[in-house]
Amino acid sequence: MINIGIFGYGNLGKGVEAAIRQNEDMCLNAVFTRRDPESVNVRTQGLPVYHADKLLTMKDEIDVLILCGGSATDLPEQTPFYAQHFNVVDSFDNHANIPVHFENVNKAALAGGKTALISAGWDPGMFSVNRLYASCIQPEGKNYTFWGRGVSQGHSDAIRRIEGVVDARQYTVPVEDTVETVRRGEQPTLTARQMHKRECFVVAAEGADKVAIETAIKTMPNYFEPYDTTVHFITAEEMKAQHGELPHGGFVIRSGVTGLNKEHKNIIEYKLTLDSNPEFTSSVLVAGARTVYRLNKEGQTGCKTMFDIAPAYYSPLSGDELRHTML
Amino acid sequence: MINIGIFGYGNLGKGVEAAIRQNEDMCLNAVFTRRDPESVNVRTQGLPVYHADKLLTMKDEIDVLILCGGSATDLPEQTPFYAQHFNVVDSFDNHANIPVHFENVNKAALAGGKTALISAGWDPGMFSVNRLYASCIQPEGKNYTFWGRGVSQGHSDAIRRIEGVVDARQYTVPVEDTVETVRRGEQPTLTARQMHKRECFVVAAEGADKVAIETAIKTMPNYFEPYDTTVHFITAEEMKAQHGELPHGGFVIRSGVTGLNKEHKNIIEYKLTLDSNPEFTSSVLVAGARTVYRLNKEGQTGCKTMFDIAPAYYSPLSGDELRHTML
Repeated sequence: MINIGIFGYGNLGKGVEAAIRQNEDMCLNAVFTRRDPESVNVRTQGLPVYHADKLLTMKDEIDVLILCGGSATDLPEQTPFYAQHFNVVDSFDNHANIPVHFENVNKAALAGGKTALISAGWDPGMFSVNRLYASCIQPEGKNYTFWGRGVSQGHSDAIRRIEGVVDARQYTVPVEDTVETVRRGEQPTLTARQMHKRECFVVAAEGADKVAIETAIKTMPNYFEPYDTTVHFITAEEMKAQHGELPHGGFVIRSGVTGLNKEHKNIIEYKLTLDSNPEFTSSVLVAGARTVYRLNKEGQTGCKTMFDIAPAYYSPLSGDELRHTML
Repeated sequence: MINIGIFGYGNLGKGVEAAIRQNEDMCLNAVFTRRDPESVNVRTQGLPVYHADKLLTMKDEIDVLILCGGSATDLPEQTPFYAQHFNVVDSFDNHANIPVHFENVNKAALAGGKTALISAGWDPGMFSVNRLYASCIQPEGKNYTFWGRGVSQGHSDAIRRIEGVVDARQYTVPVEDTVETVRRGEQPTLTARQMHKRECFVVAAEGADKVAIETAIKTMPNYFEPYDTTVHFITAEEMKAQHGELPHGGFVIRSGVTGLNKEHKNIIEYKLTLDSNPEFTSSVLVAGARTVYRLNKEGQTGCKTMFDIAPAYYSPLSGDELRHTML
């Protein structure tokens, strides 16, 4: 059995708690939190919740620590710190800062003789893996990544910060005509507006200026201005009833050509349609925990990404079983 | 530069010849054939064609030998034989015999200190890799593999063996309603007939009994009897004009559930739409050649499948470049 610790009990931590039950070779030992442990109500009977301060006293009990904090401020601190003491997995998703994060975690993990997997999830994660495979097996071509239809938490938060907004949910939506063009192998060069549109559902405070809110959203630089954006004002009840879940997904398309005269088009598409974005990410983190456990047993220490790990390491089955059943 | 030899110059060998031009770190040294080398017209100026007998004298000049023979009789002999002398890659696609083939090749490669990759391509190959990843990151769920729309060479050959048939092309076609059911996450149990249908284009000899041919096709056990099959009689000119290419493709779908009460459905789909089935397979073989070259340099000998090879090994880019550009 692989003994898992969860650090941080938000959406991702809850997803990991659920995912571990779907993996028979894993056991959830404890949840660690920076809050008062008494205030954290886990959904697994008898599962201990400890303050983060206790973590370093439990090195012998935890095989892999899954870090479920945010990429903005939590993980840049936590992953390098704990990688010296534990095998760790995180879902660090700030693409531009991945190289720096990698170096920091690598140094710590090598110093401690531990193995770390960073940026596991779907993007970065499975989408990255598919971009890589597709680029290698169709070296002449173009990659396209579309996200949605799904809730973007960052964009929803941005709307909530506007005066007069009580609650908001933003859906990122791929532009269907553009997607079809890419699927036909046309390899267009695309602007942000051509690829995605943004659909916003907003609960306004009583008496708030809805026109001003809509303008504030549509003209917001980076977040909404470069896109075709629609705004729907709804009631708090409608928000709760119709927008309570966190679906997401998207697809990575590689449009390549082969043949002596590049006369053949070949399209590779990897598509996710997720009822639960955080639970899916958590499931990748848990499969990732299996890989770092094994790599560490083999003496392969330091920081890894999903690029560096052979697919078989994610599976509880033996090589022979995999060749018989899945190849 | 990685020096490549091609063994066998059919559709796959020609595809490898073209694919190597799309990979700047590779060089095609020679084509080897069991035919009279004078009778083989390669499409690359100055490329030597040698008889297969010469291969063992060229161990120092070939870094990786790509075996482009058939899975029925060529590869079961050739891959184990040459794996003792060369790093090799093949596309062995007889799923039921993969475990035996693996053992034979593994023994030979270990004895010779060489590295072999077997069953590289799309199915087995990229489809297998996607079945594996998807099964690990959604452990509770069901896999579905659909093939087509595309030409099945085995089924086309089976029709050609019927009396009165001059030429034939068979397309495997996924049943669209079934596909939509699976994409909705319903997880049905499906018969062969529910998943695929078979569309046949046949050139009959003058005066042949078309009714008898159609009956012979539709009642052929295993090949056509378990499927809804349609037969179209066409002229030799129509065959040449409309069915001269070898398109194929298909998709692997994993329908999974997550959440404490398995309340969320998550659908993973990997889809290929290929103008050229053999050229796509060849492109995977060439990327695979890069992996065995590297693994052998690292001292990782023996037989591998795509399950055992980390994605980064397929790429000419460094780990740092990959993290910057694709993660």
